[in-house]
Amino acid sequence: MAESIRLGILGLGTVGTGVVQLVNEHQSELQHQTGSNVEVTRVLVSDINKERGAELEGVTLTESYEEVVTADDVDIVIEVMGGIDHTLEVMKEAFKNGKHVVTANKDLLALHGTELHEAAAANDCDLYYEASVAGGIPILSGLKSGLSSDRITKMMGIVNGTTNFILSKMKDEGRTYEDVLKEAQDLGFAESDPAADVDGLDAARKMAILGTLGFSMNIDLEDVDTAGIRNVTLEDMTYADRLGYTLKLIGLAERGADGVHISVEPLFVPADHPLAAVKNEYNAVYVHGEAVGETMFYGPGAGSLPTATAVVSDLITVIKNVRLGVSGHDNVAAQHQKQLKPKSAITSKYYLRLHVADETGVFESITQKFAEEGISFEKILQVPVEANGNGKAEIVLITHETNGAAYEALCQELNNLASVKELKSNYRVEGGQTA
Amino acid sequence: MAESIRLGILGLGTVGTGVVQLVNEHQSELQHQTGSNVEVTRVLVSDINKERGAELEGVTLTESYEEVVTADDVDIVIEVMGGIDHTLEVMKEAFKNGKHVVTANKDLLALHGTELHEAAAANDCDLYYEASVAGGIPILSGLKSGLSSDRITKMMGIVNGTTNFILSKMKDEGRTYEDVLKEAQDLGFAESDPAADVDGLDAARKMAILGTLGFSMNIDLEDVDTAGIRNVTLEDMTYADRLGYTLKLIGLAERGADGVHISVEPLFVPADHPLAAVKNEYNAVYVHGEAVGETMFYGPGAGSLPTATAVVSDLITVIKNVRLGVSGHDNVAAQHQKQLKPKSAITSKYYLRLHVADETGVFESITQKFAEEGISFEKILQVPVEANGNGKAEIVLITHETNGAAYEALCQELNNLASVKELKSNYRVEGGQTA
Repeated sequence: MAESIRLGILGLGTVGTGVVQLVNEHQSELQHQTGSNVEVTRVLVSDINKERGAELEGVTLTESYEEVVTADDVDIVIEVMGGIDHTLEVMKEAFKNGKHVVTANKDLLALHGTELHEAAAANDCDLYYEASVAGGIPILSGLKSGLSSDRITKMMGIVNGTTNFILSKMKDEGRTYEDVLKEAQDLGFAESDPAADVDGLDAARKMAILGTLGFSMNIDLEDVDTAGIRNVTLEDMTYADRLGYTLKLIGLAERGADGVHISVEPLFVPADHPLAAVKNEYNAVYVHGEAVGETMFYGPGAGSLPTATAVVSDLITVIKNVRLGVSGHDNVAAQHQKQLKPKSAITSKYYLRLHVADETGVFESITQKFAEEGISFEKILQVPVEANGNGKAEIVLITHETNGAAYEALCQELNNLASVKELKSNYRVEGGQTA
Repeated sequence: MAESIRLGILGLGTVGTGVVQLVNEHQSELQHQTGSNVEVTRVLVSDINKERGAELEGVTLTESYEEVVTADDVDIVIEVMGGIDHTLEVMKEAFKNGKHVVTANKDLLALHGTELHEAAAANDCDLYYEASVAGGIPILSGLKSGLSSDRITKMMGIVNGTTNFILSKMKDEGRTYEDVLKEAQDLGFAESDPAADVDGLDAARKMAILGTLGFSMNIDLEDVDTAGIRNVTLEDMTYADRLGYTLKLIGLAERGADGVHISVEPLFVPADHPLAAVKNEYNAVYVHGEAVGETMFYGPGAGSLPTATAVVSDLITVIKNVRLGVSGHDNVAAQHQKQLKPKSAITSKYYLRLHVADETGVFESITQKFAEEGISFEKILQVPVEANGNGKAEIVLITHETNGAAYEALCQELNNLASVKELKSNYRVEGGQTA
C-alpha cells in the first residue's frame, strides 16, 4: 500500500462539507486513480465547539489557520473558506510551507491570480482552481488540456446562476425582475444584498479567470466592462422573443488581431444558439476556437457536491503530480502581453428601444441620424405605446454590425432630437455564429 | 532552446492534413505550452509521387510504415490512417520501438482498446485517443480529469453526426429518411454505403470507448445493444413532437447497482432536454454524475481541423509527459470487472404505435393486456388512420416506467390480439432527468 496523502481543509461551509463527503464516499475511486489513500487530517473551522458528524472522527479541528498550513501532517491544502486579503496571506503561507493548494475562490483568483501563481511557482507547488468558474463544469481543464492546441477567439459564458435563474423565470413566466428576485431570495439562490450577482460582479470575476486562461494573457478584474440586469424589463424580453432572440446575462471575451475585449452584459442571443437553451440556475461556457469551431460546456454552476466534484478532481491531479514528482510544472506564465481593445473599437449589432413623439416626420429624422453615422438596420418595429393618450410611439430596432464609437455618437445624436422622448434601452446583439 | 520533439504521421488524409496544418500554424503556442519545438519528420502516404504543398518541405515521405514507427528521428507517432487488423500490428510495433502514440481510430480502440493499453504500458509509452470520440469535443479528457472525482451513473451521447443531420432535417423540414439521406450523401456527410452510420455501428464504437472510460470497466463493441435509424418514419417524429419529445439516435450508457447497460438506439428525448437542441452534424455528450449532477459537452463531431485539434491537444499532453519523464503513467487499468445488465432488466418508459381494427371493444382489450403485465401509461392518443376506408385506427402511447421483460411480454400479447393489425413502432423514452 502506498503512503497516504493528507489533506488540510480551510473552511467547513457548503463546499468544504461536500469535499469531506466526496473524499469519504469515493475512497476506492481515489485509491484507484491515484494509487494513494487520501485522508483529511486537519480542518479549519470557525467554531471548534460545534457538534460535528461522524465523518470528521479522528480529524483535528482548529480555529487557527497556521495549524493547517504549517502542519507536518498536511500535504495539500484545500481552501474553501472564501475571502480576499487575509486568504491571500494564508495561501502564500501555505506555499511557503511547501503545501499544494486547491481552491474554489474566484474573488481571490480574479484579483490576485498572477501573484498566487508566482508564489506557487517559487515553491514548486501546484495551484488549481477549477471550482472557481462554473462550479461542476470542467471548463478550465477543457481550456488547459482538451482545447490546448487551438487558438481561442471567443468565449461566451452564462457563469452566474442567480441572474440566469431570474432572466429565465422572467421570460418563461412573464414576471417582473423584482418579483423573481424576491423568489430567488426566498429560495436562497440570491443573497439579501444581491448586488454581486445582479450587477454582474460575480460573473466579471469568472470572466477575468476565463480570459486569462483562454487568451493566455493576464486579465484583471478591472479590465472587464461590467453591466448587470437591474434594468432589464419584461418589455425588452418580449421584444427579444419577437425578434428571434433571448436576453441573457453573458460574459463575453473576444479576441481580434489588435487586442481583446472582455465584458459582462445583458446580451441578445439568437434563439437557436446553444446558450439560449441554458435555463434557470444552470451555467454554460461557449468557446469558439480557430480550428475546433464551436464547442460548449454545460452543467451546474454551483451547489455543494457539484463544486466539491471540481475541487476533488483538481485534488486528483495534484496527487498524481506529487506521486510522479512533477508538482508545480503547470504554473505556466501567460504567453501574451495584455492588449485591451476599447469598447469603442468593438464591432457589434445593437438592439435599441426608443420612445418618440407620435407625429409625422419623426421616423425620417431618426433614420437620417442613422444614415449620418453610417449605421444601417437589420430589423425594425414601430408600435404605438399602449393607449395612454400621451402621444408617444415606440420604435424598436436591431442594427447591422457597427463599431462602438459610431453607435455612441448615434445615441447622442438621437438624444438631442426633440422628437425622441427617451432612449429606453440598449443592448448588444450576438449574431452570425449560431449552430 | 529545448530539444525538438519529432512527429511521425501515419496517413495524410483529412485529419492528417489538419494535424500538419495545426502543428505548423500554432508553433508558438506549442512551444509556449510544452517548452519544445515540434516538427513533423516523417509521413506515411499511399502515393509518394503525388504533388504536396509547401508545408511538407523537408519532411521524409514514405510508403512503408516501418520507416515511420522504427525511425530514430520519430518520438511520437500520430496514427490517422484508419483500419483495424493491420493498424493494430503497426501500433504495437510503434510501442515496441518506444514510440508514444496518438490516434483518432475509434474502430481500433473499440475492438482492441485493452490490448493496445497493455502494449503501451508494457513499453512505458503513452496512448491517447481524444479524437476517436466526438471529434473536437474534449469529452475523454473531461471524463478522465474534470469529472474524475465523481461516479458517473449515466451517459447519453449524440456521437454520430450523419444520423443527427438526417434526423434533424427530417424533423425541421418534414422530409423522409430516404430524401434526407440522399442529400447527406450528396453533401459528403454520408457514405454511398451508409450502413456504418445509419445502422448505429459507428456510434456503438464510440459508446464502447465512453463506457470503458466513464464506468472504468472494459466494454467491448459486442456489449453494445445497437439499433439504427433506417426505420424511423416521419409519423413517429411528428408524434414525438406532439407528445413533447424529439427523436434522436442516442448512445445510452446506464449504470445501476447490479451492472451496466449500453445501447445505441433511436430514443424519445424530452423537448427541453439539452440534447434535444443539438442539431444537424453537431455532437454532444451528456453526462450524469452522482455528485456533479448533469453536465453536457457540445461541439463538432468531425471535420479536418476539429478532429486535428483533439489530436494535437493529446500531442501536447504526450510531449509534457515526455519532458517531465512520466510517460505511460496514464495507462490505468479498469477499476471494475465487467458486469452487464440485460435489456430485460432495464427500466424505461416506452413509446408504442399500433394499428388496430376500428371497432368497439378494441381499446378495452388492449388496456387489459397492459393491466395484466402491470404496465400503466402516461399519455395516450387515439387517431383514425387517414381516411382510406380500411377500418383501421392508430393508437399511440407512452408508458410509465417498466422493465424490459414485462414490456417484451406485453408486445407479444398485443401481437396475438386479433384486433391489433400491426405494431408499427416502438422506442424507449428518456424521462425524469431533464434540466
